[in-house]
Amino acid sequence: MMVRFAAVLLAYLASISVAMAQPADPLPSWNDGAAKTAISDFVARVTAQGGRDFVPPAERIATFDNDGTLWTEQPFYFQLAFAFDRVKAMAPEHPDWKTRQPFKALLEKDSKALAASGEKGLLQIVMATHAGMTTDAFANLVRDWLATARHPRFNRPYDSLVYQPMLELLAYLRANGFKTFVVSGGGVEFMRPWMERVYGIPPEQVVGSSGVVKFQIGADGKPVLMKEAKVEFIDDGPGKPVGINRFIGRRPIFAFGNSDGDLQMLQWTTAGSGARFAGIVHHTDEVREYAYDRQSKVGKLDKALDAAAASGWTVVDMKRDWKEVFPSLTVAGAAKEVKP
Amino acid sequence: MMVRFAAVLLAYLASISVAMAQPADPLPSWNDGAAKTAISDFVARVTAQGGRDFVPPAERIATFDNDGTLWTEQPFYFQLAFAFDRVKAMAPEHPDWKTRQPFKALLEKDSKALAASGEKGLLQIVMATHAGMTTDAFANLVRDWLATARHPRFNRPYDSLVYQPMLELLAYLRANGFKTFVVSGGGVEFMRPWMERVYGIPPEQVVGSSGVVKFQIGADGKPVLMKEAKVEFIDDGPGKPVGINRFIGRRPIFAFGNSDGDLQMLQWTTAGSGARFAGIVHHTDEVREYAYDRQSKVGKLDKALDAAAASGWTVVDMKRDWKEVFPSLTVAGAAKEVKP
Repeated sequence: MMVRFAAVLLAYLASISVAMAQPADPLPSWNDGAAKTAISDFVARVTAQGGRDFVPPAERIATFDNDGTLWTEQPFYFQLAFAFDRVKAMAPEHPDWKTRQPFKALLEKDSKALAASGEKGLLQIVMATHAGMTTDAFANLVRDWLATARHPRFNRPYDSLVYQPMLELLAYLRANGFKTFVVSGGGVEFMRPWMERVYGIPPEQVVGSSGVVKFQIGADGKPVLMKEAKVEFIDDGPGKPVGINRFIGRRPIFAFGNSDGDLQMLQWTTAGSGARFAGIVHHTDEVREYAYDRQSKVGKLDKALDAAAASGWTVVDMKRDWKEVFPSLTVAGAAKEVKP
Repeated sequence: MMVRFAAVLLAYLASISVAMAQPADPLPSWNDGAAKTAISDFVARVTAQGGRDFVPPAERIATFDNDGTLWTEQPFYFQLAFAFDRVKAMAPEHPDWKTRQPFKALLEKDSKALAASGEKGLLQIVMATHAGMTTDAFANLVRDWLATARHPRFNRPYDSLVYQPMLELLAYLRANGFKTFVVSGGGVEFMRPWMERVYGIPPEQVVGSSGVVKFQIGADGKPVLMKEAKVEFIDDGPGKPVGINRFIGRRPIFAFGNSDGDLQMLQWTTAGSGARFAGIVHHTDEVREYAYDRQSKVGKLDKALDAAAASGWTVVDMKRDWKEVFPSLTVAGAAKEVKP
């Protein structure tokens, strides 16, 4: 009896000492496995003072795609949901839209006719809803929309459909001296109004596509920046390394994407000398989120999946690797308090 | 006698306590006066917790023009000196330049013919020397040039002709939670290779003009970014608020310039709500540096000087307000050690 008591006591003491020796897991929503290990190992290597792979903090640049990497991108990019809602809200001021495509199709919920309008139609919708106003006015529209709009399947605010494991990864990297950037095909003016609150990433660390903006002195003598209906830069595919060069001016050592639009960013990142990390979020969980890859219209992942296999990049299997996908709505509120 | 001794002792003790109460001057190269006071007062106001003008650190964005504001811009922009030196170095590979303007004029030091080639000629020279190579190769050319070239009047490295009072101002702002940016008409690829070392401003906080860059997979299968001979963006005049919006995405609360090319940046900065600071370096010291303003071909300061008088912006009189202009060459070395 006494021996058994001593054994229990020893086991108990051992469990305490293990608990004390292990700091809190910085990635609690990641299941143990190859992906989590690859991330932790990389961070340990580049932050080990005097180690062979040490990288000074100023060079610890980490870039993240947004749609499908930090938040959901199905059933269509959330920025399009914003544009569609804007068309509905603006329709009373545009009576011609009742008879003009692609607006007619959108207002009549004629998804076949809308699809038939193709990329050209989508661009018309984006231009009609993203231009002809000041940058400040547009930012307010985005904030108002996020506060009221709900995702059709999850019935939650769009900015609560962010990936809890990726929020933890962003915070973990920053705690290890990384500077975290978004490098997205999304519009930069659409992303900046909320990313500091939701991801802890300030406006100057958000790289994206943009339209032409013009400086003007308004009627009241005050300067404004007017958004024009003209594409300036598409930060997607081969545009991502170009955007990284233009906005950041330093090659990342760590990059995460989820689609073929991220292939060149991952190639550019890993082609640098020294330790490099490339990660891909593979959407494999149709129950908790969505499952799609090579055949998907939105977020097609085909060439980049082959490149990952050939180059040893880390592929995150959402179903297997993530304990949680979205923050609970209460936690989402907490996530919004994250500071840069 | 005893009374006099006591008075001297008291005065001495008082001087000690004053010396102890005053922290070291963060702007030692600035003479006391309106400019220095305006800067110190502004920083005190926006950093006073609970004060009416308090600004959270994330919003303490400070933008600085470069040519004529942080370093000298006479007798011509240093980037042009780089381009001219490149033409000379590249001439053996371009025999046609011997007979082709504006290259012929430059190689023959025919300043009249060079001037006659005008802005178009200058652009040809910039394109011939800034394109047709990778971004990495160009950065190396800039670093090599700075290490060897000397300014024609001062016979010093170009990157030692930076203004000591402005280096102190950058450090002072950063010590008070500001994020310092360069917003310059100069080429962004020309500035980024040295600004972190010289100003403590990392590449991602340098905004400038740019040429088109294209992503390519090289013959060795490695990706490169190629600089093309096509202007993409001119970050000058009305382009400065546009560049600030594009790269920073947040309106500065503090901006410094020295010419009419900075007018719109200063207007944009001061038109925001809350406390705002606009400063202009007025070149009034032909002995220690140069004296020029309304009539100058380089760095013309005319409309912005009128706007400063009308709007109460701070005008720095270089001759009167600056104790030192350039760092001593030893101190310049120290300045190069500044970390972001």
